[in-house]
Amino acid sequence: MGDTPHTAERPLANGQTRIDFQTEPSRYRHWKLNIAGDVAALLLDVDEKGALFDGYELKLNSYDLGVDIELADAIERLRFEHPQVRVVVLRSGKPRVFCAGANIRMLAGASHAHKVNFCKFTNETRNGIEDLSENSGLQTICAINGAAAGGGYELALAADYIMLVDDGSSAVSLPELPLLAVLPGTGGLTRVSDKRKVRRDHADFFCTTEEGVKGKRALDWRLVDEVVPGSKFEEAVAARAREFAARSRRGNGGQGIKLVPLSRTFTPDGVDYGTVASDFDRPGRIAIVTLRGPKVPPPASADAMVSLGAEFWPLKLARELDDAILNIRLNEFDVAAIVFKSSGDPADAVAYEHFLDANKDHWLVREIRHLWKRVLKRVDLTSRSLVTLIEPGSCFAGTLAELAFASDRSYMFLGQREGDNKPPAAMVLTKANFGAYPMSNGLTRLASRFLANPGDVETAKSQSEKMLDAETAQRLGLITFALDDIDWDDEVRVFLEERASFSPDSLTGLEANLRFAGPETMESKIFARLTAWQNWIFQRPNAVGEAGALKRYGTGQQPVFDTRRV
Amino acid sequence: MGDTPHTAERPLANGQTRIDFQTEPSRYRHWKLNIAGDVAALLLDVDEKGALFDGYELKLNSYDLGVDIELADAIERLRFEHPQVRVVVLRSGKPRVFCAGANIRMLAGASHAHKVNFCKFTNETRNGIEDLSENSGLQTICAINGAAAGGGYELALAADYIMLVDDGSSAVSLPELPLLAVLPGTGGLTRVSDKRKVRRDHADFFCTTEEGVKGKRALDWRLVDEVVPGSKFEEAVAARAREFAARSRRGNGGQGIKLVPLSRTFTPDGVDYGTVASDFDRPGRIAIVTLRGPKVPPPASADAMVSLGAEFWPLKLARELDDAILNIRLNEFDVAAIVFKSSGDPADAVAYEHFLDANKDHWLVREIRHLWKRVLKRVDLTSRSLVTLIEPGSCFAGTLAELAFASDRSYMFLGQREGDNKPPAAMVLTKANFGAYPMSNGLTRLASRFLANPGDVETAKSQSEKMLDAETAQRLGLITFALDDIDWDDEVRVFLEERASFSPDSLTGLEANLRFAGPETMESKIFARLTAWQNWIFQRPNAVGEAGALKRYGTGQQPVFDTRRV
Repeated sequence: MGDTPHTAERPLANGQTRIDFQTEPSRYRHWKLNIAGDVAALLLDVDEKGALFDGYELKLNSYDLGVDIELADAIERLRFEHPQVRVVVLRSGKPRVFCAGANIRMLAGASHAHKVNFCKFTNETRNGIEDLSENSGLQTICAINGAAAGGGYELALAADYIMLVDDGSSAVSLPELPLLAVLPGTGGLTRVSDKRKVRRDHADFFCTTEEGVKGKRALDWRLVDEVVPGSKFEEAVAARAREFAARSRRGNGGQGIKLVPLSRTFTPDGVDYGTVASDFDRPGRIAIVTLRGPKVPPPASADAMVSLGAEFWPLKLARELDDAILNIRLNEFDVAAIVFKSSGDPADAVAYEHFLDANKDHWLVREIRHLWKRVLKRVDLTSRSLVTLIEPGSCFAGTLAELAFASDRSYMFLGQREGDNKPPAAMVLTKANFGAYPMSNGLTRLASRFLANPGDVETAKSQSEKMLDAETAQRLGLITFALDDIDWDDEVRVFLEERASFSPDSLTGLEANLRFAGPETMESKIFARLTAWQNWIFQRPNAVGEAGALKRYGTGQQPVFDTRRV
Repeated sequence: MGDTPHTAERPLANGQTRIDFQTEPSRYRHWKLNIAGDVAALLLDVDEKGALFDGYELKLNSYDLGVDIELADAIERLRFEHPQVRVVVLRSGKPRVFCAGANIRMLAGASHAHKVNFCKFTNETRNGIEDLSENSGLQTICAINGAAAGGGYELALAADYIMLVDDGSSAVSLPELPLLAVLPGTGGLTRVSDKRKVRRDHADFFCTTEEGVKGKRALDWRLVDEVVPGSKFEEAVAARAREFAARSRRGNGGQGIKLVPLSRTFTPDGVDYGTVASDFDRPGRIAIVTLRGPKVPPPASADAMVSLGAEFWPLKLARELDDAILNIRLNEFDVAAIVFKSSGDPADAVAYEHFLDANKDHWLVREIRHLWKRVLKRVDLTSRSLVTLIEPGSCFAGTLAELAFASDRSYMFLGQREGDNKPPAAMVLTKANFGAYPMSNGLTRLASRFLANPGDVETAKSQSEKMLDAETAQRLGLITFALDDIDWDDEVRVFLEERASFSPDSLTGLEANLRFAGPETMESKIFARLTAWQNWIFQRPNAVGEAGALKRYGTGQQPVFDTRRV
């Protein structure tokens, strides 16, 4: 079905056995991050020889996951390391080409699982760019001098403002359908229809036209925000950057902090990060992700927090959890379920919630909350069954309790284990559970959970700051099942075994539907309707079959289509 | 890829070569419609031997498209023939089983194209049941005495009120995932999460539990509205029916009209209905659907309209267009594009719009408007490229103009054809274009079209009732392109040829995304995110491969899954 065999995911070009999501500017091969005062430039200058996998070259500023990992890293550094930056200009470091989009030969050779998860990650990165603008005031200008095709234009679509040089040839395009028989993979259709509100018949023309649209028509059809003659382009881009910077509310944050490399210990069956441990039960097809509570009390002041930098527990935990989730997503396809556990004293975790709340207007606290929001959304969107086990000695309090609400099910231990003196499991709700972390659908997890009776959210809120035992948590509807020592081991084991026995695809579809009740946003539309259609098309012989367009692209042979409309 | 070969769609059991959507109660094999005063009973009593295709029997009140065609017909007749009915009780005519859902052997043997279009039709029928309640005041009670599994429970979910007998064994269930490795195909997940607002972890448990949920838990988890001991079930159902009937605002409509059989002439390359003609250009993979304007002026009064019954032009046109669309969807998979044309005088069509508007509170006019709303939604949801050609001598006025707005593109002829005395093409907007026909997303087609500038809707409205020539229509943004005699033939031909050359799957995905900008509703969620995930899963080897669950169901062999999560 177009998939490479199960046991042989594509070899990495760098000789490593797993895709690494950690990088830093000094190691970038494809992007340059230049900062001058309050304006940053992010230059895409892809190293053709720097592909993630063997077997293709990254020509024409085309990208693969490796390129996007650097972009995602650069965006995080703008948030945390450069709080003075007010505007970022996205542009190409190569002449006459902005970006040719995702590398087609990479796509043609990738497993379905990699393709789908690659698209998910690039989508998250683009949503992160929009979040940077909306919530941190760092706006993005995309300056297109050359061709912005497919994923290249989709990258532009994430910007607040798109400038296109008017030189008779530079164009924006989404040629996926006519060229490759697939859909744009990174939110392009949704952003064209819902963000830029391009009229549907214009969008239809645009998305079925290989060469795209340029000049005045691109402007008239709302595909770009400004077209500028080549001779005035640099000047216009600089002027817009100054204007955007002047309007930005960002930039009173003082010094940034350094996002030091994560310290990780890899073993054959796990990764230990420090505040997070990821353990793989491979026969059971389970990843147990344990979050460790703080070992020290919160710092005495916001300045002390800044001094701690990336060692500050909430930030360290978020970064490590993010890496753990991405590692499972892209390197551990066989994991059926992620089991969240935690260890520590809920009171210690609550103390950090109080610290964050007391300093909620500090730029670094804001960025940490937004990072957690994005990490938790990443969890929501991870196509593995999610289960939280709330056991004696755990610390699911405030932000950590969100993992229980993000899970498909949660089990909470009633009382203590025989012969174990760990304190009974307790969950604690804090302010963070009632607004800090909206899901893709715009609602908090508790509001999504209690869609039937919004009053249940208020009832839960009235119990904030209390140590809620399993019976109380169950009565409040915060957990799925409360089990005592007699039932716990068997019930949890049977559930996890059963989960691993189901068809992975049907679980993915089920969870994608049940996790996001209620309203839809552009973001949820991208991850739900658009992604699902893409996945479907990525399975169809017309795209990925031996005679399909994706396989035949560049061979000189025309694709052969099954002409039935479905 | 799980599809039967292109040239051999499954043979029909009745010896016919095409699926027929026309039926009437005297021909029903699976449903009984009993009417007693203001209460109707719709009894599902499937004839095992009455399958649409060869090769399977419809055991345990399972269904195929043939069963659902009868249900859809019965619902239409309740609307038009029985305006006195205020409540309908949906139940089984068989003991100990309500409905086992879609027939699994039918699904296992069906082409992907049939499966997808079967699900689309059953979804439309269930949405029609909800529309009947919301807009015509005819509420539905579902009385479940026995097992309601899969599609059986999904049928119940369309009702306003679900009653379940509490007999220790009757249960509701969605066992598709554990049994078949697919998703419930008829909106079940969305109605569980968004209509009944079942808590997501309860929904997760419910949808992964083969045996389903019964009794008090079904009630507590909001899966049903009432559980009743077996000894009191009949009495309780009758009491609820009386209560619902007493509360209904329906039933002042007097006599119904008869939905007489459509008169159709089939030729090898088309169907002529009278007010609609459907012509197939098979080499070009185009269906040209021509709508003919009225031949007589509107009747003198509402009573005269009732006397005309199904011959009343707007009603006849809607029914014939609906049949034409369904015929293309389920019998003509090779059609890449539907081209809408019309013939007649726009003024004549406008006269009918005025008649309908003047009588807008008459029950029959309301039903006709709602029928048009549903037919136009059916057009929106048809996975073929839609194009409207507005030529000299056409009558795209009011309701008919909606087809241009439903189309992916529209082309309008500038001036007259050389040597042809037909009057220049004109489009006319009427009140009907500004509220009568919301799309699945809840917006009018013009509001969806002008999402960027809602003021454009107002500007268009100010031009209502005027004969808009091609230049004006283009200026108002109502059409995609205006072309003169010199360019028309070539441009239209090239467009249609190009369209037919693209991958059908990618067009389906593209159109499904671009047609529905803006807000989402439960209905749009069903047709977009849920359907897309289903289609994906219906392509995956874990479901439809030789060792997949759908293929192996009932064979005694366990399915073998590719365990990778995607």
